[in-house]
Amino acid sequence: MQTIHLKEYEIFIGAVGEKLQQFLKQKNYTKIAIILDENTRRHCLPIFTQLLDSTNFAIIEIHSGEQNKNIETCQRIWNQMMEAGLDRHSLTINLGGGVIGDMGGFCAATFKRGMDFIQLPTTLLSQVDASIGGKLGIDFNHLKNSIGVFRNPQAVFIEPRFLKTLPEREVRSGFAEIIKHSLIADAGQWEDLQQIEDLGQVNWEVFLQPSLKIKKKIVAEDPFEKGIRKALNFGHTIGHAIESFALPGKQPLLHGEAIAIGMICEAWLSHEIGGFPIEEVTTIARFILQIYGTCPLNKKDYPYLIELMTKDKKNENERINFTLINPVGKALINQTCDESLIEKSLQFYEKVALDKKQGKDENPKFSEEV
Amino acid sequence: MQTIHLKEYEIFIGAVGEKLQQFLKQKNYTKIAIILDENTRRHCLPIFTQLLDSTNFAIIEIHSGEQNKNIETCQRIWNQMMEAGLDRHSLTINLGGGVIGDMGGFCAATFKRGMDFIQLPTTLLSQVDASIGGKLGIDFNHLKNSIGVFRNPQAVFIEPRFLKTLPEREVRSGFAEIIKHSLIADAGQWEDLQQIEDLGQVNWEVFLQPSLKIKKKIVAEDPFEKGIRKALNFGHTIGHAIESFALPGKQPLLHGEAIAIGMICEAWLSHEIGGFPIEEVTTIARFILQIYGTCPLNKKDYPYLIELMTKDKKNENERINFTLINPVGKALINQTCDESLIEKSLQFYEKVALDKKQGKDENPKFSEEV
Repeated sequence: MQTIHLKEYEIFIGAVGEKLQQFLKQKNYTKIAIILDENTRRHCLPIFTQLLDSTNFAIIEIHSGEQNKNIETCQRIWNQMMEAGLDRHSLTINLGGGVIGDMGGFCAATFKRGMDFIQLPTTLLSQVDASIGGKLGIDFNHLKNSIGVFRNPQAVFIEPRFLKTLPEREVRSGFAEIIKHSLIADAGQWEDLQQIEDLGQVNWEVFLQPSLKIKKKIVAEDPFEKGIRKALNFGHTIGHAIESFALPGKQPLLHGEAIAIGMICEAWLSHEIGGFPIEEVTTIARFILQIYGTCPLNKKDYPYLIELMTKDKKNENERINFTLINPVGKALINQTCDESLIEKSLQFYEKVALDKKQGKDENPKFSEEV
Repeated sequence: MQTIHLKEYEIFIGAVGEKLQQFLKQKNYTKIAIILDENTRRHCLPIFTQLLDSTNFAIIEIHSGEQNKNIETCQRIWNQMMEAGLDRHSLTINLGGGVIGDMGGFCAATFKRGMDFIQLPTTLLSQVDASIGGKLGIDFNHLKNSIGVFRNPQAVFIEPRFLKTLPEREVRSGFAEIIKHSLIADAGQWEDLQQIEDLGQVNWEVFLQPSLKIKKKIVAEDPFEKGIRKALNFGHTIGHAIESFALPGKQPLLHGEAIAIGMICEAWLSHEIGGFPIEEVTTIARFILQIYGTCPLNKKDYPYLIELMTKDKKNENERINFTLINPVGKALINQTCDESLIEKSLQFYEKVALDKKQGKDENPKFSEEV
């Protein structure tokens, strides 16, 4: 088992059963509740209960999905916390992906002004992304994570057995953050990633630890996102807007799927604003499209997408704030540009996606054509 | 002007205009919003705007009253924060009593995972009680402050001119916390307080600073209420339950009015459990009843009151937790007792209240009779 030591807590990666037992024994909580959804109840709870002797937990079940990460679900969770008799010396265990981790953590952090919680992330995305940084929250008015707090868990337990329960689409979604970490901070890992051909064959433990260490280093320097932590926002300004936009639809995009699109757009902006080589943009776009396929955008939706970006909590003085890259492995924070250039970056995505669909992606000349 | 220096911020007491100007100039916030209610808009906003050069603020107005300190009002505040274009580098000014301070602070602390806020408490209660401690939150399921966070303001500005705008009932409510501070930590001040005959004639600045310093000392030793901070809960276990109980009614009790009743009951419990002299209980009861008058309780409501107490966030292991006193000036934390004794303490209140009404309070023999 690997351990990553952070300033305020530890992340355990591997067969975490024994560590989890130890933790619960040491802490002696008055009560313990597990927050889960119908998916993790079915697929992960059986694995979880195998890890432990005792099963004396309250179960708080919510409906899965980003569309339920809202204040109404929080009210149901708080209600069930009360009914279960939790107090501020109790523990919440968040057993699920990013939605459970963010919202369960937020509810724990605000219940009776704060109780302890631990994260058992069950998706690749939440294992690589939500384990570090203490960001908790919910969506509000269709704006992602616009209500929340910063607060660290008591510990994070990353159990690789949970990943075997995931549909392929969920794995792809998590992979986007691993791509991002390499693009902003580790050119060597970016080379390694490009060797991956089949996500189903990857031993994720190999990539999880280096990826978590990149995030650890960046967050430690800037816990409250005043400066360099913004490096982690690469792909996220446009990606979040696309994710928010797709949220009310019948088949919402997963976070990583939206961020993958955002990284293509923002790699192109990196070229336009920062002189990032167009060949590198092409390489990134081709790799991402090969894994994620293409997603139709529509020109008539551009203004609404840009409106969503203007409401992004990363902005200052109502200017849309970007993190770009140049070269691979180095992030440029606090970049801004005209809205027309943002629209062009969306057009760039549509162009490469179309070329990909039509099999024309072997020799793209994106920059000239848009 | 007096200044109380806390570890993370300062409290200014007096004519605070200049300090407030300086603060805003130094900080250079992207936007500023004032949260107020219909009362502070009418009575306090004119005073507030006189203090400042600029009046370039967004106004967020909510309905006054504890019954509106809930998640629905938070949603309206968050909405208006978004509409006003606030970002995480903006400032919220909470201009009002405890409800505005607690809920406005909570909304600021959770908006985009936290923006700065300052408190301009306009009631005696919020000036003496809410200025220190970083407790923010709302009521949920009729349970007082059951959802919230700990977070400090950037500064607190206590302007005595606001007190002149208060109805007498509000002044009485605030006075209860001053009584409490003296009973748990300052026997000398308790003697001074008993000389007060007309609350309308009091120069509050004289009592505010010592009272705030008592709270400062206690909170500094225990910011997250793990131990000695519970001293501040004297009168609050029973008081909160009575306040929650009265909340849905036509004329809810003010916080201090409920705490005043709670202090009589819990002084009696201090006698029963801790041997606090019954003569002192009598003195406390007589002083409080003289100022607050009597409030009818009803035997049939005792079980519900006790149920409310069992849900109090101060409890551990579902045992109702009390802070008692013995002698005056010294608090005893983590006291528990049987529910039957709690009922008897409520009966004690009813007895002394009845005696007071019937003019029989000169020679009460409460302890023997209940």
